[in-house]
Amino acid sequence: MATNVEKTAEELNTMSLSPFGVARATVNAKILSDEEVKKLTDYFNATMYLCLGMIYLKDNPLLRDPLSIDHIKRRLLGHWGSDAGQSFAWIHMNRLIKKYDLDTIFISGPGHGAPAILSNSYLEGVYSEVYPDKSEDVDGMRRFFKQFSFPGGIGSHATPETPGSLHEGGELGYSVSHAFGAVYDYPDLIALTMVGDGEAETGPLATSWHSTKFLNPITDGAVLPVLHLNGYKINNPTLLARISHKELEALFIGYGWTPYFVEGSDLPTMHQAMASTMEHCVKEIRAHQKKARDSGKAFRPLWPMIILRTPKGWTGPRKIGEHFSEGFWRAHQVPITDVVTNKTSLELLEKWMRSYEPEKHFDKNGKLVPELRELAPTGTRRISANPVANGGVLRRKLKMPDFRDYAVEVKKGGVTSLGSMAIFGGFLRDIVAQNMNTFRVFGPDETESNKLGKVYEVAKKVWLGDHFAEDADGGNLELQGRVMEILSEHTCEGWLEGYTLSGRHGLLNSYEPFIHIIDSMVNQHCKWLEKCAEVEWRAEVASLNILLTSTVWRQDHNGFTHQDPGFLDVVANKSPDVVRIYLPPDANCLLSTMDHCLRSSNYVNVIVADKQDHMQFLNMEQAIAHCTKGVGIWDWASNDAGQEPDIVMASCGDVVTHESLAATALLRQHLPELKIRFVNVVDLFKLIPEVEHPHGLSDKAFKAVFTDDKPCIFNFHSYPWLVHRLTYRRKGQHNIHVRGYMEKGNIDTPLELAIRNGTDRFSLALAAIDRLPSLGNKGSHAREALLNEQIIAKNFAFHEGMDPVELTKWVWPF
Amino acid sequence: MATNVEKTAEELNTMSLSPFGVARATVNAKILSDEEVKKLTDYFNATMYLCLGMIYLKDNPLLRDPLSIDHIKRRLLGHWGSDAGQSFAWIHMNRLIKKYDLDTIFISGPGHGAPAILSNSYLEGVYSEVYPDKSEDVDGMRRFFKQFSFPGGIGSHATPETPGSLHEGGELGYSVSHAFGAVYDYPDLIALTMVGDGEAETGPLATSWHSTKFLNPITDGAVLPVLHLNGYKINNPTLLARISHKELEALFIGYGWTPYFVEGSDLPTMHQAMASTMEHCVKEIRAHQKKARDSGKAFRPLWPMIILRTPKGWTGPRKIGEHFSEGFWRAHQVPITDVVTNKTSLELLEKWMRSYEPEKHFDKNGKLVPELRELAPTGTRRISANPVANGGVLRRKLKMPDFRDYAVEVKKGGVTSLGSMAIFGGFLRDIVAQNMNTFRVFGPDETESNKLGKVYEVAKKVWLGDHFAEDADGGNLELQGRVMEILSEHTCEGWLEGYTLSGRHGLLNSYEPFIHIIDSMVNQHCKWLEKCAEVEWRAEVASLNILLTSTVWRQDHNGFTHQDPGFLDVVANKSPDVVRIYLPPDANCLLSTMDHCLRSSNYVNVIVADKQDHMQFLNMEQAIAHCTKGVGIWDWASNDAGQEPDIVMASCGDVVTHESLAATALLRQHLPELKIRFVNVVDLFKLIPEVEHPHGLSDKAFKAVFTDDKPCIFNFHSYPWLVHRLTYRRKGQHNIHVRGYMEKGNIDTPLELAIRNGTDRFSLALAAIDRLPSLGNKGSHAREALLNEQIIAKNFAFHEGMDPVELTKWVWPF
Repeated sequence: MATNVEKTAEELNTMSLSPFGVARATVNAKILSDEEVKKLTDYFNATMYLCLGMIYLKDNPLLRDPLSIDHIKRRLLGHWGSDAGQSFAWIHMNRLIKKYDLDTIFISGPGHGAPAILSNSYLEGVYSEVYPDKSEDVDGMRRFFKQFSFPGGIGSHATPETPGSLHEGGELGYSVSHAFGAVYDYPDLIALTMVGDGEAETGPLATSWHSTKFLNPITDGAVLPVLHLNGYKINNPTLLARISHKELEALFIGYGWTPYFVEGSDLPTMHQAMASTMEHCVKEIRAHQKKARDSGKAFRPLWPMIILRTPKGWTGPRKIGEHFSEGFWRAHQVPITDVVTNKTSLELLEKWMRSYEPEKHFDKNGKLVPELRELAPTGTRRISANPVANGGVLRRKLKMPDFRDYAVEVKKGGVTSLGSMAIFGGFLRDIVAQNMNTFRVFGPDETESNKLGKVYEVAKKVWLGDHFAEDADGGNLELQGRVMEILSEHTCEGWLEGYTLSGRHGLLNSYEPFIHIIDSMVNQHCKWLEKCAEVEWRAEVASLNILLTSTVWRQDHNGFTHQDPGFLDVVANKSPDVVRIYLPPDANCLLSTMDHCLRSSNYVNVIVADKQDHMQFLNMEQAIAHCTKGVGIWDWASNDAGQEPDIVMASCGDVVTHESLAATALLRQHLPELKIRFVNVVDLFKLIPEVEHPHGLSDKAFKAVFTDDKPCIFNFHSYPWLVHRLTYRRKGQHNIHVRGYMEKGNIDTPLELAIRNGTDRFSLALAAIDRLPSLGNKGSHAREALLNEQIIAKNFAFHEGMDPVELTKWVWPF
Repeated sequence: MATNVEKTAEELNTMSLSPFGVARATVNAKILSDEEVKKLTDYFNATMYLCLGMIYLKDNPLLRDPLSIDHIKRRLLGHWGSDAGQSFAWIHMNRLIKKYDLDTIFISGPGHGAPAILSNSYLEGVYSEVYPDKSEDVDGMRRFFKQFSFPGGIGSHATPETPGSLHEGGELGYSVSHAFGAVYDYPDLIALTMVGDGEAETGPLATSWHSTKFLNPITDGAVLPVLHLNGYKINNPTLLARISHKELEALFIGYGWTPYFVEGSDLPTMHQAMASTMEHCVKEIRAHQKKARDSGKAFRPLWPMIILRTPKGWTGPRKIGEHFSEGFWRAHQVPITDVVTNKTSLELLEKWMRSYEPEKHFDKNGKLVPELRELAPTGTRRISANPVANGGVLRRKLKMPDFRDYAVEVKKGGVTSLGSMAIFGGFLRDIVAQNMNTFRVFGPDETESNKLGKVYEVAKKVWLGDHFAEDADGGNLELQGRVMEILSEHTCEGWLEGYTLSGRHGLLNSYEPFIHIIDSMVNQHCKWLEKCAEVEWRAEVASLNILLTSTVWRQDHNGFTHQDPGFLDVVANKSPDVVRIYLPPDANCLLSTMDHCLRSSNYVNVIVADKQDHMQFLNMEQAIAHCTKGVGIWDWASNDAGQEPDIVMASCGDVVTHESLAATALLRQHLPELKIRFVNVVDLFKLIPEVEHPHGLSDKAFKAVFTDDKPCIFNFHSYPWLVHRLTYRRKGQHNIHVRGYMEKGNIDTPLELAIRNGTDRFSLALAAIDRLPSLGNKGSHAREALLNEQIIAKNFAFHEGMDPVELTKWVWPF
C-alpha cells in the first residue's frame, strides 16, 4: 500500500498517487452497461489467462487437469509486468473500432510486453490464420503457449513474427517516433501507442513527444499515446510515477498534448473510466481533424493522450510470500519463480490462473466463446490484422525520374569541380515531386547545409509550430511539407523507420560524424529486417536509406569532434542479407547509386558522399558501368594497359579518390616509366569474399582487379582497418597498404588533415615509392621531390589558413 | 519583425513570442544603478567585439587602422549566433560571484559558442595566464584572434584547450547531464549551464532535465540552467521558441523546475531583468540548500531555471543586404561572408565592430580598462579559472581495498561455477564504502540485474522522487545514495563524464547490447581525453570505466535484439592513447582487471564480463600474472609442454573461453595424441602490433604465444572480424581461424545460440580437426563422434527448452 493514499486531495496534487483503488479519471462517465463491463472483464481475463499460460505452460493449456509440474516449462521466461495495462488499452480500442469503424494499429512500447499483444491477436483469430498450427483449439493453444520464449519459438517482444506489429521494442525509446512515422500521410489511421514509463525515461522517447509539431491534421493520421504509468522498471520506480500530479500534467501540456488521466486498479470502475476517456480522446481527434479538413486550414491542436496509472503486474497476487508483487517491481518478469520446486507456489499459480475462469471463456474445443469474440472487430479492422503493420503489402513502387537526366557532363576525368550533393538534390527534388504522398526526406536540421535545398523548389519543411514573418525570407516552412527536420537524429530515424515499415519510402540525410548517435537504432532496424525476411507473410518494405555527408575529410575546420567515419564499422557487423554500403566517388556515381538504393527493398543502404565541390571523374555511361560492377579499374587513370602493373593505386570514397588520383598523377610525373593501375571501389562489400556477402567478389575476380602479388596503396574514406577486416582472407592481403582516418585531427585545412592521417597525395605517392624498392635511385629522387612539394603546400596552408588553390586541381602529366 | 508582437497579452500567452523589444521578465526589479548598467553594457560590448575579432581578424586587432581586407582572415569560420546570449549570462553571473562569493563553473551547451567563452576568459586574464603568448596587449590580442578556427589553432567549441571548460559541446545534447555530474558531491558549486534551444531538441538533453530527481540539496551543489531561446538552429526555427508561453512554462514545471523568463533585446532593460532574475535564482538555490542543510532533511525543490529569449546573433545587424540576420537563422555562423570581395560588406563589418567601441574598453596597450576589469571576480573565483573544470587537479586517489581479499578459491581450473559479477560486487561495495564522496556507480536500472546488488549493503540508490511504503521491501532507495539509476544510458554516461571530469571517480554498468546507445558519447569522450593529453595544464582525470555485462552469449532467451557485442569495434577505432579493452575470463581476472582500471587515469576502459554463474579457471595468483601479461598460455589446459603444438586453441571472453576449453577437453578425449596449446587473451590490444597500440605485443612475443605457422582456433566474445582487424599484420594470420558472434540469433538456449554462430565446443573441436588433415582417419572418426554428440545435445535443448545440465560442466580427460 502506498504511503500517500490517505492524503487529502490537495496533498495528492503535490505528490505522486497510488495506482490502487477505484478509478479516478479526467473523464469518467458511466457509458457502459453492466453487461458490457462484464464482457469486457471476461475478455480481459481471457487475455490475462493467455499471458500467464505463455509464461508458464507447456501442457494442460486450459487447466482441464489439475496443474502439475509436468505442465510447467522447465525454464520460466517472459514478462508479466506490463501485460495487463497493454491488453486493457487494446480491448478498449476494440470497442471504439467497432463503434466508429476506426483504422487502428497498436504500438507496444513497454519492454517485453508481447504476451498482451499475442493474446489479443490469438483471441481475434489472426494468430491462427497466420500460423495455422496455433489453431483456436486446445492443441493449438498448447503450441501457442509452449513456443513463447522457448528455443526455436518466439520472443517476449513484439518481434517480426507478431501479427500487427511494426515495432519490436527490444531496445526502448522509439514507440512514439515509430507511431508518428506510421501515421504521416495516412489520414485515417490512429496509432494507439503504449508508452512504458520506463521507456519514457530514455532520451529518444523524451524528445519524440514533440512530434506533434510535424503532424498535419488534414493529411496525416493521429497518434493516441497511452503513457502507461506502470510504476516500476526492472528494479526501480519510474520517474514519472513518482512526481506530483501537477508536474505530470504540466509536463504533457508542455509537450503539446492534452493529458487525460485514468488511474486505479478496480476493474469495473476502470472499465468505465477507460471507455469514456478513450472514446472522448478518439472523438477529440476526429473533431480536430474535421475542423482542419472542413476548413482546409491545418493547425496544431493539443492532441489528446491518456495517462494510464495501474499497478505493475495488475491483477496478479499483491504479495507472493513475504514480498510485494502486484504494484511493485517484483512483478516485472516471472512473478512466481519456484513453481516447479515449491508446492505452495504451484498451488498459488493454479489458483491465480483459475481466477481468470478459462473454462467460462473458451468452449469445449478451446475456442473463445462467441459472445466474447464479438467484442473484437473483424477482418482487417482487427488491430492485429491491420495491413499498415505489414507495410510492405501497401507499398507502391516509387515513381522515379530517369537519373540520367541529371548527369553532369564529364569530358575528361579530374577537370571539372562540382558539388555532387547539389546535383543529387535536383534528382531528389523530382522524386519528391512525383511521390508527394509516399516519400519524405528526414534530416536533423541539415538538409540545406547538406546542399539538398533544391527539394524546397517543390516541397517545404513541415512545421506546425508557430510561424513568424521572417520565415518568408528563406524559411521554407509550411504546414504541409515533405522535409522533416528536428534536431534529433533519434526522432528522424524513428520517423523514417515508422514511415517505411508502414509501406512508404524515405531518405535520412545527416552529417557523417553524428550518425553514431543512432548506431543502436540502425542496429535494431537491421535486426528487424533480417528477421522479417524469415517471416513468410511479411511483405518487403522500402530500404532504409541513410545518406551521410559533411564527411570527415571536410570537417577540418570544425575539428576533432566532427571527425568520425566509423558508422560503417557498425553497419558492416550486421547481417550481409541486410546491409549495403556505397561510397560513390563523384556526382554521376552518386546519382546512379541513389537510384539503385531508392528502388531497393529490405536493405539498410548507407551512402557516403561529401557535400562540397569536388572533382568529377566519370561521365554517366562510365558511372553506370562502374556502379553496376561496384569496383573497377579506371583505364583512363592507369597506364598498365593490359599488362601486370607495378603498383595498384586504389580508393574508396570521394575525397580520398581525388587524392589517390592526384598521387597517381604525381607518380606518373616523377616516375613516368612506372606502370600504375588505378582502382576505385563504390560498393564496399565487393572487397569481402563472395561466401560472406552476396556482393563479394570471387577470389578470381578480386585478383583480376587488385592482383595478388603487387603492392596496393588503398586510400579509404573511413578507418583503414575496415578494409583489412574485409580483405584479410584475400591472397596478397599483405600487399594491401591501407590509408584512412587514423583518429588524428584538429583545426586544420583539408590538406593538413589529410597529411596528419597520411591520406594526402604526397603521402600516398611516398607510400607507393616505399613499396617499390626496385626503383632504386629514381625512387629516392622522386621521394625527395615529393617531400619538398608536400612541405611547400603545408607551409602555404599554415600561413594562409587555407589550402593552395592549385591543390583542388591536378593535371595528368600526359 | 515577428508576426505576433502586436497581439494582446492573452493572445501572447497562447503563441510564441518575439525575441525583440524591451525586456519582459518574471522577476524584473531595477536593482542596478545606471552606472552599473553602463559598465555591464561596456563589458558585454568588449566581449562582443572580441567574438567578432576572432571570427574575422588576423591583424589590426583593435581597429586602430581603418579596416582593410588585409586584416581579414582568408577563410572565414566560426559562429556568431549564440555568442551574445552566452556572454550575457556569464557576465551576469560574474556580478553574483563577486556579490556572494560563489563557486561557479560555466557549461556551454549551444553549438560552436566558444567565442563567448574565450572572450570572457581573455577579459578575466585567465587566457593570458594559461597561454602567455596570448597576452593582454595588442599583439596578444592579434594572436588570440588569429588562432581561432585557424589551422593549428583552436576550434569553435569549448575544446579542452579552453580554460574553464569541461564540456566541449561538439556533439549536442549533454550539457545538462555533464553539469549535474559536475555538481554531485560538490555542495557549494553552482554550474551555470547554457542550454541551446537546438540542443534542447535532442533526446539526451530532453530527458536530462529530470536529473533533479537525483540531486540532494544537502550534499550536492546546484545547476542553474539558462535555456537560451535563441530561436534558430542552422537553418530552422527551434521547437521551443515556437510554442506558446503557456506550453513552455508548463514543460519546465513538468520537468520539475521553476522557470523564470527573461525575454527581449533592449540591452539596458535586459540587464536589469537578467540581474534581478539571476540573483533571485541564486538566492532561491541557496534558500533551498539552507533549508535542507539546516533541517538535515533532503527534499526535491522545484529548482529555479532561466529561460532567456533573445534574438539569434543579438546585437548584430538586423538585416544584411536583403536578408534578415539578427533574429534569424542567417546569424548562425559568419553573418557577413563576402567582406573580402564586397566593399560595402567590409564597411558594414567595420561599422558594426566599431559600434562596440573597442577604443573605450581597451587601454593603449590593448588591455581591458581597470574599471571594467573589476567587474570580473578574481583568482579561482573567475569562472574560467575554476579548478573544477580542470578536475584532475582536484582528484584524490581512490582508496582501494585489496582486491585479493575477494578472491575465489580455485584449486583446479574449470570445476567450480560462480558468478564473477557478484564476486566483483563485494569489491565494488567496499570501494564505495571507502570513497563515499568521490565515487559513484551509474547504471540504467540494471545494477541489481547485473548482480552488483552487494553495493546496497553500504549505500543505496539516490532517489529524490516520491517514496512509497513498498520501497522498504528491497527498494534500496535513499535521499542520499551512491548508485545512480535512470533508464537513460545517455544520462548515466553524461553524469559519469561530468563526475570524472570534475575530479571524481565512477563506474557505469550496463547491458552489453544497449551500450551502442551511447556510442557517440563515448566517441566524444575519447576525443576529449585524447586532446586533453595534448594540453599541458590539464591534469589527468579518472578513467571512464564501462563494465558491460548481460552479454550476448547469455541473451539467448531475450533474443536477437539483445545480442550485440559490437561496442568494442567502435571503441577500437579511437586513439590508442586513450582506449583499453579487457575481457577477463573469470572472477579473479575480473577483480584484478577492475582494480587496474579503477586506479587508472585518462583512459576509457571497457570491461566485458557476463553476470551469470560461470566456470572459474585461475586462482588469484594465476589471475594476477595472467592479467598483468594480458595474454598467455594456460599450461594447465595445454599438453604441448615446451614443444611446438599441433594446434592452438585460443579464446577471449568468459563464455567463449568456457567453450574453447570444453572443445580442448573434447579434442584431448577423442584425439589424445594431439598436442594442443591453450591461449587466453584478457587485454584485447595485445593482439595488435606494438607500433599501433602501447599494449600491443611485438611480433616475437606474438609468435611465442600463437606460433606463426600452426592453425589457431580463436573463440572470440564479439564479432570475429575485430580479431582479424587487429592481427592482419601478423605473420601467419592466415592460420588464425576466428569464431565469434555472426549476427545469428533467435530465442535459443545458450548452446543453440553458440551452435548457430559456431562458437560451441563441438563446432570448435570440429573446426580444429578440419584444419589438421594429417589426422587422417582418426580425425574422421573423431569428427563423426563429435557431430553425434552435438546433435544429441541440440535435441535435448530443443525439447526441454534448456541446455543439458552436464554441459555446464566438463572434465579434463586426464
